[in-house]
Amino acid sequence: MSDLIQKAATLDAADPLAHFRDKFALRDGLIYLDGNSLGALPKASAAAMMAAVEQQWGEGLISSWNDADWVNAPSRIGDKIAPIIGAGEGEVIAADSTSVNIFKALGAALSLQEGRCVILTEEGNFPTDHYMMQGLERLSGGKISTKAVAGDAILDHLDTDIAVLLLTQVHYKTGAMRDMAAINRAAHEHGVLVIWDLSHSAGAVEVDLTASNADFAIGCGYKFLNGGPGAPAFIYVAKRHQHADAVLAGWFGHARPFAFEEQYDAAPGIERFLCGTPPILGLAALEVGTELMGKADMNAVRAKSLGLADLLITAMQPLCRDHGFALVGEPDRTHYGSHVSFAHPHAYAMAQALKARDVIGDFREPNILRLGLTPLYLRFEDVILAVSRLQAICESGEWDRPEFHARAAVT
Amino acid sequence: MSDLIQKAATLDAADPLAHFRDKFALRDGLIYLDGNSLGALPKASAAAMMAAVEQQWGEGLISSWNDADWVNAPSRIGDKIAPIIGAGEGEVIAADSTSVNIFKALGAALSLQEGRCVILTEEGNFPTDHYMMQGLERLSGGKISTKAVAGDAILDHLDTDIAVLLLTQVHYKTGAMRDMAAINRAAHEHGVLVIWDLSHSAGAVEVDLTASNADFAIGCGYKFLNGGPGAPAFIYVAKRHQHADAVLAGWFGHARPFAFEEQYDAAPGIERFLCGTPPILGLAALEVGTELMGKADMNAVRAKSLGLADLLITAMQPLCRDHGFALVGEPDRTHYGSHVSFAHPHAYAMAQALKARDVIGDFREPNILRLGLTPLYLRFEDVILAVSRLQAICESGEWDRPEFHARAAVT
Repeated sequence: MSDLIQKAATLDAADPLAHFRDKFALRDGLIYLDGNSLGALPKASAAAMMAAVEQQWGEGLISSWNDADWVNAPSRIGDKIAPIIGAGEGEVIAADSTSVNIFKALGAALSLQEGRCVILTEEGNFPTDHYMMQGLERLSGGKISTKAVAGDAILDHLDTDIAVLLLTQVHYKTGAMRDMAAINRAAHEHGVLVIWDLSHSAGAVEVDLTASNADFAIGCGYKFLNGGPGAPAFIYVAKRHQHADAVLAGWFGHARPFAFEEQYDAAPGIERFLCGTPPILGLAALEVGTELMGKADMNAVRAKSLGLADLLITAMQPLCRDHGFALVGEPDRTHYGSHVSFAHPHAYAMAQALKARDVIGDFREPNILRLGLTPLYLRFEDVILAVSRLQAICESGEWDRPEFHARAAVT
Repeated sequence: MSDLIQKAATLDAADPLAHFRDKFALRDGLIYLDGNSLGALPKASAAAMMAAVEQQWGEGLISSWNDADWVNAPSRIGDKIAPIIGAGEGEVIAADSTSVNIFKALGAALSLQEGRCVILTEEGNFPTDHYMMQGLERLSGGKISTKAVAGDAILDHLDTDIAVLLLTQVHYKTGAMRDMAAINRAAHEHGVLVIWDLSHSAGAVEVDLTASNADFAIGCGYKFLNGGPGAPAFIYVAKRHQHADAVLAGWFGHARPFAFEEQYDAAPGIERFLCGTPPILGLAALEVGTELMGKADMNAVRAKSLGLADLLITAMQPLCRDHGFALVGEPDRTHYGSHVSFAHPHAYAMAQALKARDVIGDFREPNILRLGLTPLYLRFEDVILAVSRLQAICESGEWDRPEFHARAAVT
């Protein structure tokens, strides 16, 4: 382990992103390996939130829709997310939840695919992706059907019945990463549109929606974008598809919301993918997180993420050998996102025991200890410390205390 | 006018709700007649928001889903909204936008009405209500149709084709208030379910969903509930209808969200009407506003609201006589909500000129000056002051300055 401590110190000393850590409010001693579930608090967020509450809401009141430019917050923030995921200006908007945006993207894609009635996804996709598809299927009364197939058989199921393929780029559990460009290409050959769920990609890996010729994407504001708990999500629609029907078409998606017209007339651009009144307080926090992420070079972020993962996997080898952990996936992380999962029969208790030692990771059913690697605020040193605490937990057997087996409401 | 000043002083002195004003951060001199568009900032909201940001998010991080009970925020706040609108425990949940909740309520109602395919509303309903209906109609590919008829002809159009009637209880422009119990009764006689939009009702007038045998309702968190700009909205589903299909059925509406199952299995109660991850920061502000509203007796709120409206209408009589204002609706406000509208050919400029004199109301197309009366923080004295400033604006002709005619993005 002492070799690895030395290696971590060297890597930290050379880390071009090291200065970002000070931009986050992280307690000394805490090792936070769950930024892929809820990103840490940027120090600037508290002041921005106070300005939104006390000045904009409290003093500006209704006038802040114009004076504080609340009305453009969704598209302004969308344009700040865009470069992080390789999208163009006017192709991304921040609004609603990821789940609601999945529904919008499905509806929009279907509106472009007359005569095609099947929504395809992979088994084991994140549950809400399945659920939103299933809700649309039920609502359609059988007109639309959903199909989930094994992940490695997706390409075999592309045909002219398929309207849309909904895939998550980086798998929430295993971290496995899809080749976006190749899948778009294969899908387009069959006339299939693709919706990418970027929840574990945006701010985590290099994404180039433009170069990969993506159709639609949605993603999460509260993970690697550090937008706060339940932050507004985003939706990307390629310019060429922006005439699609957003379906969840509320007054903020209208071409003239304040004309109060009775007939829906969709805004010409990405604004049509807004629905109700934008969540201004949530957007204020998301804007800070997004701006901070936007200052980091995504090549550097990815390079550090791979470095952290390599170090973690190397450091975990003794625990894999002696204490029942098994790396999920391959040691070469080139085709994975920014978290590393280890299977263990007592993964839940291990996660709880780690928390008691101030290391926060998370558990995913049925047996996964998931460790998120967030290059903006995680140090190589932290990885080594986390593994050494886990080693102590295993060697002492403390993970087996009854309190570490009691399940909380949210795991 | 001096008689009215005296009357206002007497009414203020006897106002049982007067002590609430100090709970809000309102600048001295400002007369805020737009709390029906964006409610004022409760003083306690800033501290609650800071606690949510700095302690819960910053320090608690992911653990706050359990430790700060984030996971139950939507139902906890729903249960605080319930008594304000005469709903029972477990019948209301705070989530998403009003528009998204309209879609959920429509989908749920339709799921209970097999064989019926028409959604009915009134012409002139708030635009987003129309738009969400229209989106559902387009998505259904003609299976569902929408119908908007004159408001006074609604009851004549109830028949066995109608699945669901979507009505706003208090009209956003005129303030006219529907008799909820009578309409529910008439609708139910034809097997029609009713969705009530309570955006201008909740916290503004006495609403008794239980006694009026309501089916579904949705409403706004940022108006009379003072939940902040773009606050999460709420949805009410009567216990007897909670087996309905929420359609926008995301992972937070699942019976076991953290089991990460692939097949949707709706939560048994009101939680099934959640969709994505709840917007925790917006909910933190909404909780403060809702708690404050919950401390006021709704009978007293309604009595004061009617008193404010009477005083306003009386004080406006000279302006109606001499300066072209015309009261929208009847002077007896028993059948109106908590805002009063006046038509005027230069309503937009009048609203702007009032703003320059620190009186904030709003304009609604095509010619409406809309004045919101929020009993928790408005004094009778404010009403008189606002009218006297408007009188000065009319007498001086200052409303006709060019800058008062320039339209802002949000009106």
